[in-house]
Amino acid sequence: MFLADLPTPALVVDTAALGHNLASMAAALPGARLRPHVKAHKCTKLAALQARHGHHGFTCATPREMVGLAAAGLGDDLLLANESLDPARLRRLAELDARVTIAVDSNETIEAAAKAGLRAVLIDVEVGLPRCGCAAEDAARLADLARRSGLQVRGVMGYEGHAVGLDDRQRRSDETGHAMQKLLAAHAEVGGEMISAGGTGTFDLNPWATEIQAGSYALMDTAYGRLGLPFLPALFVLATVVSASKTWTVADCGLKSLGMDHGNPRIEGSSIWFCSDEHTTFAADEGRAPPRVGDRIRVWPAHVDPTIAYHESLHLLDGERIVEVWPIDLRGW
Amino acid sequence: MFLADLPTPALVVDTAALGHNLASMAAALPGARLRPHVKAHKCTKLAALQARHGHHGFTCATPREMVGLAAAGLGDDLLLANESLDPARLRRLAELDARVTIAVDSNETIEAAAKAGLRAVLIDVEVGLPRCGCAAEDAARLADLARRSGLQVRGVMGYEGHAVGLDDRQRRSDETGHAMQKLLAAHAEVGGEMISAGGTGTFDLNPWATEIQAGSYALMDTAYGRLGLPFLPALFVLATVVSASKTWTVADCGLKSLGMDHGNPRIEGSSIWFCSDEHTTFAADEGRAPPRVGDRIRVWPAHVDPTIAYHESLHLLDGERIVEVWPIDLRGW
Repeated sequence: MFLADLPTPALVVDTAALGHNLASMAAALPGARLRPHVKAHKCTKLAALQARHGHHGFTCATPREMVGLAAAGLGDDLLLANESLDPARLRRLAELDARVTIAVDSNETIEAAAKAGLRAVLIDVEVGLPRCGCAAEDAARLADLARRSGLQVRGVMGYEGHAVGLDDRQRRSDETGHAMQKLLAAHAEVGGEMISAGGTGTFDLNPWATEIQAGSYALMDTAYGRLGLPFLPALFVLATVVSASKTWTVADCGLKSLGMDHGNPRIEGSSIWFCSDEHTTFAADEGRAPPRVGDRIRVWPAHVDPTIAYHESLHLLDGERIVEVWPIDLRGW
Repeated sequence: MFLADLPTPALVVDTAALGHNLASMAAALPGARLRPHVKAHKCTKLAALQARHGHHGFTCATPREMVGLAAAGLGDDLLLANESLDPARLRRLAELDARVTIAVDSNETIEAAAKAGLRAVLIDVEVGLPRCGCAAEDAARLADLARRSGLQVRGVMGYEGHAVGLDDRQRRSDETGHAMQKLLAAHAEVGGEMISAGGTGTFDLNPWATEIQAGSYALMDTAYGRLGLPFLPALFVLATVVSASKTWTVADCGLKSLGMDHGNPRIEGSSIWFCSDEHTTFAADEGRAPPRVGDRIRVWPAHVDPTIAYHESLHLLDGERIVEVWPIDLRGW
């Protein structure tokens, strides 16, 4: 199938850009130095490609991502970098034919993990982002509690999410350093071989972590695109112009095909007016010919993760040809 | 199953509030005066309930919604209130065992409809919202072209989307009036029995339209909740508190379970700090006890439509009991 024949809206992956991104990251953080976060793409086929680039451990945000990776034979070393108190889902994880480690940050999450029959945990430490993670001072106590509950404590994790998106590289680096000092202090008390942290924005600014949990680097988005990272935009929503007035143009993708928390998407040579459920209204920049009804355009999402979660498939583009269709099979919880 | 046993995050519908909303709307706009828009809920079971309240015509935003309603036996009078140029999808609509009408606003969309074997159209007129719809002055020409192309022209549609969300009722009414003057002028030239317009925010402010395309009224959201409409909030995301610090609390729902274009969701007695992929960080208001790890909370979405599109099921709540699970079966395109 050719790009011109694809029903729209559709998520399209530029295979050349994807290949560049995977190779660049594998060169910078080879093998187990990277634990790719699958929440960004939710696609076992893409995870399998990351494994072929040498990364055999994966980071997940949901139990369903863990279950799906294990079922796809990618269960060498799965980390649920998130807290869960769901007894049935935790039991399901304990029964997987996979090496499973989960994050804990409280008495309750440790108790739930032990009760479900899970074997290994990381102590999740808050390092500056107000989200999950225990206070660094509490990490040693929780590690003791976990060990007394029969759990192996493989180390610590702490996500510097307040740093990964900072425009200024020096500030990004400084904030990462501060965050990792907290994490290292906790690790000194907790022990274990793992110090798991980081993201696409800090992949080369975090030498303290033993492994980096980057996900967005594979497909990228316009928010990460501003940071000057060595990764290429590889994901766009293909849309069709369905209406045009003298002043504006309307494409058939909107709030239900684009994550909107980072703001509007981009269309080259245009300014976006607004998105509604199934439409994006935009206007061509001065001096540019506006696209016409029936034209195909590329709409670049601002945030890859919540964009992916709306779609059923990734369409892999090589030149003008769709060479493969990959199910986005890790959606939901 | 009880609410307390539901895996989270999960979309929950308060059946009492839903019943109130459907009955209130059916009293205000009985039978064919309302053409419920299914894009808001994407659920054939909910559409069937709207039909039992007397509304047998439906509005859709995507071909897949049309196909799904027809397959569910709800194809008495389906309107695709959107432009499409997709030959395969338009042919599929033409072959449905259903009465199908689609919106057109250009030579290209008329040609595509005629070529696909569709039989009936509405001329979509721009009435103030810069999105689809022809210029009012062009409506008569397009109606002629459609008729010459063998299509029945059933009338006009024009969505006053720039008015439906205005906080001030008088302004909402005035803007609707201006918009409908444009639409009536176009209708005078186009002819046909249908003048289709409106939404939840203008359902009782638009006596000019022969039918109102409201969808959000059934489940509501916090954006429409501000307008003082006679509809109750009927949809929330059930979430579990998975982490808590001294200062903030974290629930397990985020950007992948909430449409974010209208801003953050609400949690009673709390202020929201931010949402990330699978988390909402919030803090209890002063004087309120913060929820504890393991507690279940209700998170009220700001925008119903893009929230629904992330989920697989609606869980119907009666008291504390989940009495039915309805698939959200009209997602995608």
